[in-house]
Amino acid sequence: MPQGKPSVVPDDGLTTRQRRNRPLTMVHTGTGKGKSTAAFGLALRAWNQGWPIGVFQFVKSAKWRVGEERALRVLGDSGEGGTVAWHKMGEGWSWVQRDLESSEEAAREGWEQVKRDLAAETYQLYVLDEFAYPMHWGWVDTDEVLAVLQDRPGAQHVIITGRNAPQQLLDAADLVTDMTKVKHPMDAGQKGQRGIEW
Amino acid sequence: MPQGKPSVVPDDGLTTRQRRNRPLTMVHTGTGKGKSTAAFGLALRAWNQGWPIGVFQFVKSAKWRVGEERALRVLGDSGEGGTVAWHKMGEGWSWVQRDLESSEEAAREGWEQVKRDLAAETYQLYVLDEFAYPMHWGWVDTDEVLAVLQDRPGAQHVIITGRNAPQQLLDAADLVTDMTKVKHPMDAGQKGQRGIEW
Repeated sequence: MPQGKPSVVPDDGLTTRQRRNRPLTMVHTGTGKGKSTAAFGLALRAWNQGWPIGVFQFVKSAKWRVGEERALRVLGDSGEGGTVAWHKMGEGWSWVQRDLESSEEAAREGWEQVKRDLAAETYQLYVLDEFAYPMHWGWVDTDEVLAVLQDRPGAQHVIITGRNAPQQLLDAADLVTDMTKVKHPMDAGQKGQRGIEW
Repeated sequence: MPQGKPSVVPDDGLTTRQRRNRPLTMVHTGTGKGKSTAAFGLALRAWNQGWPIGVFQFVKSAKWRVGEERALRVLGDSGEGGTVAWHKMGEGWSWVQRDLESSEEAAREGWEQVKRDLAAETYQLYVLDEFAYPMHWGWVDTDEVLAVLQDRPGAQHVIITGRNAPQQLLDAADLVTDMTKVKHPMDAGQKGQRGIEW
């Protein structure tokens, strides 16, 4: 990982301190493993800084992220670092009382809540897990997402994971990593394993 | 992330159960961000399974991984999941009493301990953070690493991170992800940030 030295000093009128605390939009995309695990690994750093963390899990499978969720809940409840609020679409968003008709509607409801939380500066790190999909599928308007992120107040960092992240998102993001699959055990017939896939 | 269905059923004489619990060698390499954070994200899943986790941090900077270390120590001490043993080269390996002459010697000492722990089946997940470098630099013999991993007993998973992972390691690994840098804030003059870089 690069450390310390920026390769360019930007002519943006900001002080180093302001620049150092600039909110980042980060994207983990690509077909390889590690997009979400790296986002949750980053959440450990945020937790250590005492930041309030909001996770929005835009996936439906109940089995996914069970380990990450339990670990982050234990950390959030430990009183030693930041707090953790974990929201999952799979069981229906907790703040939505009525039945949602479709995954599309559920994804939109999730995004509406993210917008409210950004406006209220509820969290300092937002993990929008698998949020690239609803954008890719057109369920959530990418241009609107970019406008909201562009105008968000304060120093709220946002990380978005998922394959097929729209090009406009990559263009607008501060950090983009493509998790490129070189080799995966399932290519060799390996089934998903406890402790590895979930 | 792919789930469930392997694309090939191998003719290896193993039952599905045996194959499901096969120890994996995983490598996160490439120039992008997320190699180590994804490894520590994976450690959350291992912790949730109650596995003993051994982290060997083959880096010298004191600032690196402070968030991950504190989070994993809190999790390991919580009594709710697996245990965590965190070993770091930066401050001198805890089991080495004498002064080490060089980073090369320190890296070798770390690898010797990993070998002992693999033989004793001390952990179920080994995070060998930045271990690709000592192999790349020839401080630790890659062929020996591969032979030790090949012959390790039980179901001990090993994950190795770092740029420039040797090709033989990639060939022998079960899972390889290349974290490909598409865009990094430092390219635009952004300095490293708390909660993001450490």
